[in-house]
Amino acid sequence: MKTIAIDAMGGENAPKAIVDAVLKVQPELPDTKMILFGDQAKLEELIPADKLGEKLEIVATSEIISDEDEPVKAIRSKKDSSMVVAARYVKEGKADALFSLGNTGALLASGIFIIGRIKGINRPGLMPTLPASNSENGFNIIDVGANAKSKPEYLIQWAKMAAYYAEKVRGVNNPKVALLNNGAESDKGDDLHQATYQLLADSDLNFIGNIEGNELMTGKADVVVTDGFSGNIALKSVEGMSSVLLHSLKDSLLNNGLKTKVGALMIKGALGDLRKKYDTARHGGAVLLGLNAPVVKTHGRSDIRPVYYTLKQIDKILAEDLIEGFKHEFSKQEEGK
Amino acid sequence: MKTIAIDAMGGENAPKAIVDAVLKVQPELPDTKMILFGDQAKLEELIPADKLGEKLEIVATSEIISDEDEPVKAIRSKKDSSMVVAARYVKEGKADALFSLGNTGALLASGIFIIGRIKGINRPGLMPTLPASNSENGFNIIDVGANAKSKPEYLIQWAKMAAYYAEKVRGVNNPKVALLNNGAESDKGDDLHQATYQLLADSDLNFIGNIEGNELMTGKADVVVTDGFSGNIALKSVEGMSSVLLHSLKDSLLNNGLKTKVGALMIKGALGDLRKKYDTARHGGAVLLGLNAPVVKTHGRSDIRPVYYTLKQIDKILAEDLIEGFKHEFSKQEEGK
Repeated sequence: MKTIAIDAMGGENAPKAIVDAVLKVQPELPDTKMILFGDQAKLEELIPADKLGEKLEIVATSEIISDEDEPVKAIRSKKDSSMVVAARYVKEGKADALFSLGNTGALLASGIFIIGRIKGINRPGLMPTLPASNSENGFNIIDVGANAKSKPEYLIQWAKMAAYYAEKVRGVNNPKVALLNNGAESDKGDDLHQATYQLLADSDLNFIGNIEGNELMTGKADVVVTDGFSGNIALKSVEGMSSVLLHSLKDSLLNNGLKTKVGALMIKGALGDLRKKYDTARHGGAVLLGLNAPVVKTHGRSDIRPVYYTLKQIDKILAEDLIEGFKHEFSKQEEGK
Repeated sequence: MKTIAIDAMGGENAPKAIVDAVLKVQPELPDTKMILFGDQAKLEELIPADKLGEKLEIVATSEIISDEDEPVKAIRSKKDSSMVVAARYVKEGKADALFSLGNTGALLASGIFIIGRIKGINRPGLMPTLPASNSENGFNIIDVGANAKSKPEYLIQWAKMAAYYAEKVRGVNNPKVALLNNGAESDKGDDLHQATYQLLADSDLNFIGNIEGNELMTGKADVVVTDGFSGNIALKSVEGMSSVLLHSLKDSLLNNGLKTKVGALMIKGALGDLRKKYDTARHGGAVLLGLNAPVVKTHGRSDIRPVYYTLKQIDKILAEDLIEGFKHEFSKQEEGK
């Protein structure tokens, strides 16, 4: 049986949204154990006593890492925090994956310093699944900010891990891989992107060339690889634009008189379809790939839905034995050197 | 009298959209002369004979640089192209600004190699004005792709030029300047962004700190400075997301049955407001700042509207004597060194 270690105290709606999602998803994951790390009294209040047992446990912790905490300092000083104790469970083999809605930097640090990197991997990369206009399936983008400084050797490993993920977890056959760049031609970008282009072109991946920012959301690629700095800018730019447009649309519909309000009611179904299409929740959380266990993050403001979908995503990652796959792949490379 | 050199052959709708915009804007720019460079027969066919004269001239050219041409090679080999001859007019002092809808790379190359950099400026930066959710005024972002490789010395100069532009041309008092980065704290980003942060903090600019991708379109900053690589990714990402969302909205409204179609008609006014708010056309074109004359680009697919607004924008740049301002500012710096 696989075990997911869940930081029950991270995020704006903790611990309730997390507990609710756990209780909801549990019947669907018969072969998975979940451990909730956090304030025992609060958690026991939220969980019916008969639900606790072999498949759902509480581990009491006394501290919480907040969004304001400085990440590396926090994981060193708050030894009894829900996040750090959960990470230690994974490190010690008592759990197989770490999930948190808390401080992203601290979660990355917990992953890197407590759980540790897979041998042969230079740097872990953070990879969400984003919606795409042309498919239900969305696309993966890696790295969106675990690294401020990147090297071609990192990007090629991220591309391989993300393509493996797309194939195993999302069921994409021979995923199309593209490099986020400032133009289509192979000589575009700075030294980093030119060198990465060559590594990708020479690899076994289904590399379709460079992709530009305006093509990201079209689903042209199943996997987009990017340096962690521009990847972070790209991710936040599309999130920001989307949020600004949808808010402005809502404002326009509410503040243009009665006729518009009636019209808005009549198009409600269509707007719901649109929202569903670009709903990020159903794609689960962002996975930090390259560590000895999956470390997964969802937005701190998440309610039950994103948490529910992320738990299903983690279950799938564990069922597909992704980490063993990576270890096999990258230890081969080490030997091949 | 100031003179604008206009490449009449660039873009999908050339020369008609360009000629139409010139004829429309002319009565509003009584002190500005415009020269159209291109196919004389075609241009004469589009321009009523009585409109030609001291304030509107045609210079016949025999070649066109297409979007497929390799930029630097094109400006060297196509010596009689509308773009290159127009640039030479500026170089020789026969015109004060260069405007084209053609090949962006070739236009940048024409600007850099023919018109030349202002003494004291390291690299020119490309700067559009984008719409913002909180103001009619939008914001400037520089550099969005004239440079694949950037240095802190470049970014501080771009910030100064863009702030000067925001103040003089857009009328923003003491413009707020921010650095596009992957987090809010001063130590965020790679070496380039950390060093640039310090230069900005030590400058006379109204520096408000780092801005993240998701805050770009909110209008938090009047001027955003960024390295040319991530700036290009950010600009294209917001353009792409906006285009994908608006297309999906249209699709949803058209393909959800009669009730939705009727509702769509009723909210037409509200959608028009939204489109107007995020309309980039009324902000004019992207200006390549740092050269001995303004070099301005609008989208190749532009129709008459963006061209019209860009001509007004160029007129304002010339009226405010922006280039003289830059020369004064940066030659001072040279002396101060």
